Amino acid sequence: MSFRSGRHHLHIPGPTNIPDRILRAINRPTIDHRGPEFLELGLEILEGLKGVFKTSDPVCIFPGSGSGGWEASLVNTLSSGDRIVMFDQGFFATAWRKMAQSLGVEVDVITGDWRRGVDGKSLIEKLSTDSQHEIKAVAVVHNETSGGVTSRIDWIREAIDTCKHPALLIVDAVSSLGSIDYRHEEWGVDVTIAASQKGLMLPPGLCFNALSSKAIAASQDAGLARVVWDWRPMLAANREGFFPYTPSTNLLYGLHEALIMLEEEGLENVFVRHQRLAEATRQTVSAWGLEIFCRDSAEYSNSLTAVQVPKGSDADLLMQIALKDFDLSLGTGLGKLQGKIFRIGHLGSLNELTLLGVLCGIEMSLQIANIPFRKGGINAALEFLRSRKC
Amino acid sequence: MSFRSGRHHLHIPGPTNIPDRILRAINRPTIDHRGPEFLELGLEILEGLKGVFKTSDPVCIFPGSGSGGWEASLVNTLSSGDRIVMFDQGFFATAWRKMAQSLGVEVDVITGDWRRGVDGKSLIEKLSTDSQHEIKAVAVVHNETSGGVTSRIDWIREAIDTCKHPALLIVDAVSSLGSIDYRHEEWGVDVTIAASQKGLMLPPGLCFNALSSKAIAASQDAGLARVVWDWRPMLAANREGFFPYTPSTNLLYGLHEALIMLEEEGLENVFVRHQRLAEATRQTVSAWGLEIFCRDSAEYSNSLTAVQVPKGSDADLLMQIALKDFDLSLGTGLGKLQGKIFRIGHLGSLNELTLLGVLCGIEMSLQIANIPFRKGGINAALEFLRSRKC
Amino acid sequence: MSFRSGRHHLHIPGPTNIPDRILRAINRPTIDHRGPEFLELGLEILEGLKGVFKTSDPVCIFPGSGSGGWEASLVNTLSSGDRIVMFDQGFFATAWRKMAQSLGVEVDVITGDWRRGVDGKSLIEKLSTDSQHEIKAVAVVHNETSGGVTSRIDWIREAIDTCKHPALLIVDAVSSLGSIDYRHEEWGVDVTIAASQKGLMLPPGLCFNALSSKAIAASQDAGLARVVWDWRPMLAANREGFFPYTPSTNLLYGLHEALIMLEEEGLENVFVRHQRLAEATRQTVSAWGLEIFCRDSAEYSNSLTAVQVPKGSDADLLMQIALKDFDLSLGTGLGKLQGKIFRIGHLGSLNELTLLGVLCGIEMSLQIANIPFRKGGINAALEFLRSRKC
Amino acid sequence: MSFRSGRHHLHIPGPTNIPDRILRAINRPTIDHRGPEFLELGLEILEGLKGVFKTSDPVCIFPGSGSGGWEASLVNTLSSGDRIVMFDQGFFATAWRKMAQSLGVEVDVITGDWRRGVDGKSLIEKLSTDSQHEIKAVAVVHNETSGGVTSRIDWIREAIDTCKHPALLIVDAVSSLGSIDYRHEEWGVDVTIAASQKGLMLPPGLCFNALSSKAIAASQDAGLARVVWDWRPMLAANREGFFPYTPSTNLLYGLHEALIMLEEEGLENVFVRHQRLAEATRQTVSAWGLEIFCRDSAEYSNSLTAVQVPKGSDADLLMQIALKDFDLSLGTGLGKLQGKIFRIGHLGSLNELTLLGVLCGIEMSLQIANIPFRKGGINAALEFLRSRKC
Repeated sequence: MSFRSGRHHLHIPGPTNIPDRILRAINRPTIDHRGPEFLELGLEILEGLKGVFKTSDPVCIFPGSGSGGWEASLVNTLSSGDRIVMFDQGFFATAWRKMAQSLGVEVDVITGDWRRGVDGKSLIEKLSTDSQHEIKAVAVVHNETSGGVTSRIDWIREAIDTCKHPALLIVDAVSSLGSIDYRHEEWGVDVTIAASQKGLMLPPGLCFNALSSKAIAASQDAGLARVVWDWRPMLAANREGFFPYTPSTNLLYGLHEALIMLEEEGLENVFVRHQRLAEATRQTVSAWGLEIFCRDSAEYSNSLTAVQVPKGSDADLLMQIALKDFDLSLGTGLGKLQGKIFRIGHLGSLNELTLLGVLCGIEMSLQIANIPFRKGGINAALEFLRSRKC
Repeated sequence: MSFRSGRHHLHIPGPTNIPDRILRAINRPTIDHRGPEFLELGLEILEGLKGVFKTSDPVCIFPGSGSGGWEASLVNTLSSGDRIVMFDQGFFATAWRKMAQSLGVEVDVITGDWRRGVDGKSLIEKLSTDSQHEIKAVAVVHNETSGGVTSRIDWIREAIDTCKHPALLIVDAVSSLGSIDYRHEEWGVDVTIAASQKGLMLPPGLCFNALSSKAIAASQDAGLARVVWDWRPMLAANREGFFPYTPSTNLLYGLHEALIMLEEEGLENVFVRHQRLAEATRQTVSAWGLEIFCRDSAEYSNSLTAVQVPKGSDADLLMQIALKDFDLSLGTGLGKLQGKIFRIGHLGSLNELTLLGVLCGIEMSLQIANIPFRKGGINAALEFLRSRKC
Repeated sequence: MSFRSGRHHLHIPGPTNIPDRILRAINRPTIDHRGPEFLELGLEILEGLKGVFKTSDPVCIFPGSGSGGWEASLVNTLSSGDRIVMFDQGFFATAWRKMAQSLGVEVDVITGDWRRGVDGKSLIEKLSTDSQHEIKAVAVVHNETSGGVTSRIDWIREAIDTCKHPALLIVDAVSSLGSIDYRHEEWGVDVTIAASQKGLMLPPGLCFNALSSKAIAASQDAGLARVVWDWRPMLAANREGFFPYTPSTNLLYGLHEALIMLEEEGLENVFVRHQRLAEATRQTVSAWGLEIFCRDSAEYSNSLTAVQVPKGSDADLLMQIALKDFDLSLGTGLGKLQGKIFRIGHLGSLNELTLLGVLCGIEMSLQIANIPFRKGGINAALEFLRSRKC
Repeated sequence: MSFRSGRHHLHIPGPTNIPDRILRAINRPTIDHRGPEFLELGLEILEGLKGVFKTSDPVCIFPGSGSGGWEASLVNTLSSGDRIVMFDQGFFATAWRKMAQSLGVEVDVITGDWRRGVDGKSLIEKLSTDSQHEIKAVAVVHNETSGGVTSRIDWIREAIDTCKHPALLIVDAVSSLGSIDYRHEEWGVDVTIAASQKGLMLPPGLCFNALSSKAIAASQDAGLARVVWDWRPMLAANREGFFPYTPSTNLLYGLHEALIMLEEEGLENVFVRHQRLAEATRQTVSAWGLEIFCRDSAEYSNSLTAVQVPKGSDADLLMQIALKDFDLSLGTGLGKLQGKIFRIGHLGSLNELTLLGVLCGIEMSLQIANIPFRKGGINAALEFLRSRKC
């Protein structure tokens, strides 16, 4: 690569920009993971994580990406041949479904529109046909990272409750946790999956399962084989602040710092900031005359915005230009969306001027790529963000 | 914890002291794991790793500790009910055996003495009874980290060959890779498991499976469920320098630097250095009049030394004193060895004077702990190390 | 300070944003400044610096800021009572003049307009009256950081040559070196002063004197007292790669990395980049309908732009808003310019999107501060920067 | 340089090993040195430094090494032709004397023995002949870094008081501050010089002048020219937490952290630790049968030990071996002591095992260098340090 002056602009929807504070926290000698100093660290992290998930139940930390969190959520709760309801929400929901199938679980897919959030009604229909309670779990993605659509988890909970169905509720909050309000306990979620490299502002390498007592009970009987992902030895060791195998100590240093930062800013302030920056992005996209992939403004994601390019234009070309000319990394369209959309990550450690620089970079790249759009969209973001300050 | 001046002395048998160069390499902004800069990094690492394992076949990198590497090695090669031969070598071999059983594999244990390496003869006996070739794999630990005993992997290979048995050879090289000569290809190993936090001088968080083409072929038919650990999508993505899910980018930065450092020092020089420092340690232990846990000097580990305390003495008390009085972390006796032995890690980024400081710390702690020993053992190390220089 | 998410935007005209690479280079253990490893470092730096100043003569490195460089330039060349010609160029030129007077030097001031560069003609007038050659030196600021005005050093040289005057030419290149083309040798400069925290992208703490052989000769007779600033022991020690007193080793690590980065980008490319970003800034300022402090476009500074606010407006209020609302630090008006101008630093490690974010921040702050301006100025920068790419 | 595994052992008597905490503190983006965040930092540092010098009067911070601190102490208190009493204490005292002479000050040297501390009696003799009070200052080195001899500053104070002489007392505490008890105010010191790279555990680059009100008063009339070193604008700016020219911000970050660390450990504990490690060093030197350069045990330095090699042996050869074979940097003999002594730095961030490693390295190097000595000296340190723990 040729020399690039200044900072790279990383605006994929995760991994996100890691604050220097967190990089410095990671940049410490590894310690004995069975010693007293680690114990203190471990207990503080395990306690602090509960606040971020809004739960009083335990949160498990595994080495891995979101995929690891998915696998852990399934192998700890299900047995081979168990039925699980999953939704056709987007690229990642699809991958999760395939994973479940690979693990020997029977998946009932509720069809959907990738441009919309999931729908409680269709779930009620599905569950009400299951009078034998063969369905063991309902798995849903809170914020689909492929399309920038946020679903209402409380509605899913309500649907399950309406049916008085005992299925576990498993939620992927990978790209919402720490960016978009998420309430594990209040929404009655049994397993929440998250990962380090999004709203938690860390490098990739850690994934999480927040549990409910019902999920913990289910794990006693779940028949799928697992060792590394097994909650049982993890929960036992965590009670003492330790881990059943060598943990990723240095990433845990970073997590400890991230938890302090989220507390310093205040979790609700974090959500408001993400909402503000997301709205600025959307106003600019609209001013450009481009279409937001998510159809319903009530379901707009505050951690990323997927933008459709007009027919005949190539979103990947735009991304290549942004990278080459402006050192800006945007998210590509995944799977069937490739070339049709690009995705702007606006989550994690971020503020107004950094986002505005990114929007400027996209505006220039749109023009260079000869994609039809209305110039000056950046002014909408300026107007909006300015109005929030005075 | 009260204030401790100077550096902590981490001498457990891994995680090891991370060189500043590697910490600085990790301390970089995360990049797009689907972009061109990552591609270059990924390809260089995947190629460089082969040299460290001494193989020309692919090496898979997973997020996780050694346990993850174990699980990956088993779920990619075996089906439920398959038979595997494993050895009673020590605490970690035992844990690995339990893992195999948890995964639904039938384990044939070859009994052994934790104070000795494994024995090709008993394997020949075992395999020669298996004319139906029901045994699918032989799994052995190269360097048992619980007891400091190094087994001869070439003898195991020879035993399998003698029986003309098609079983796969799976080897745990977690605490030997990058410290003790290890030859994946020459020894005909099918899967080698390693991890980042030992001879590779990295923080914990990455584990490895070096493969053979026979192992890759076996993975097509292996019936155990796996997604994250699955070699197939990993090998496919790796061919392009990418990963099937978000990799631990920052640890990969560190791995890239570690590979450069190993090359700068020269892998054979690394082994000689470990041998020298290990021998200095052993001479001191002997001069103290204490017994090395490993019975056979031909099987002494060059990455750690496990030391027995005399009957009536408590090795854990020694460790507590070393930590409290001298900020020195040693390895505890694991499982049935707790209190009976302590372990000195002398692997990774290490030199003479650092090791000598550690041996001094142990000598003082032995006295404070009232453990019977001969004072002045440190002089043996001084004499030996000095003799190697002039 | 309350919590601020994301990066701080430091856009004073130095110190500038330090690239992570340089921070990491500094983040290394200090070494023996009399040992062989230092020697190598020292020689590489001393050689590399010559290229940045475009000279083949030695460059001295002192601990200190630009003020230290000024003091060193004077005490090594002058004796008490010597006459020196200096210009009324701006706040920093004024401070330098006061320093000369404090040191016992007689200063002939050539009056000027802070909004314009210096003028060779008036220097010719001054020098031509000095037939006795009582004037020992002419001291001029290349790029006045207080007003954003770049003077033509080659014209000053020409003026001196026209008069066939033997005065030394001393130039302050503090805010131009590494940002704006500067040619120590070609322009016949005898002493060039620079500092670490501007175009060299380092933290403050180092200052420089690039010398000519005439300057070195003059230093043999210069009567002003000096020890730390004395070139003579410095040049003697530097010949061996060492320093006459303990150097700021860790900042030298950073300097070593900065020299590598400047070479990687190519010094001429660095100048073109600064020119491009500066021009984008100026086009935006003009589009806002605000006045650039520098009157003559041929003298616009490429490292900073000083902007006048309309009468009745308070530039300091704007700066406070930028800091409070957008975490953006701008340069204040210094001395008599306080409240009348603000200064935008666009030097050092910087690229398009970062600059555009800053300009967006200023546009919003202008509005919040109720300073009369035309909205949408940012579009001019977008247009200009885009046009340079396609 | 060929590859060296593990950490370099830096045991010159400064710069010292920088704790990772301090390196990480330095590894932060530079901020606006005129902004509110800097203000907070500046005030905390300026206040915290007073505690380390044990004074309630101001302490000035300059960019520079100890030489800068020396120059500042002289140019702020003296006028050309003033008389100052200085002592023949060692290499650094000699350099300081030459500096005073270069600055135009008349130096009265009290002759002495480099192997002993200064003597109040000879000062009384000197001062009692000065009934006209022509002597303006007495300048003394607290801990001569070239010979490892600590002088009694309270005796010097007493001598001045006995003579009722108004001379200022100027003390070099460069290698004692933060390592050996030092009491600026109680001992009636008027100017104390210190630097960052010794007991303060920082990289080189900062020097200090702690003042008395008498010194501040003297600076109003002092006639020596100075600008950068001038206390007057420094004290004025410091009152607001700022500096009269761009300060070395990143080193100030490190200083802030160093002050926190000294407070966490407790300054008196810091002194006790230095005393303990120094005593262990001395017991080992004695057990080797080598002579400590300092003749009087009451004057042994706790920050370094200078060791004489027997006639016919070459201390520099020893140092080269230590560096080549064991990656250990020791201090050389300076000036007339070159080849005759080597110096062991045992100051700053240091603990038992690190020191013991160093002593082991010296013992092996002595043998390799064929310097006559008694082997096994290390055991004396082990015995002593062990006895201090149980």
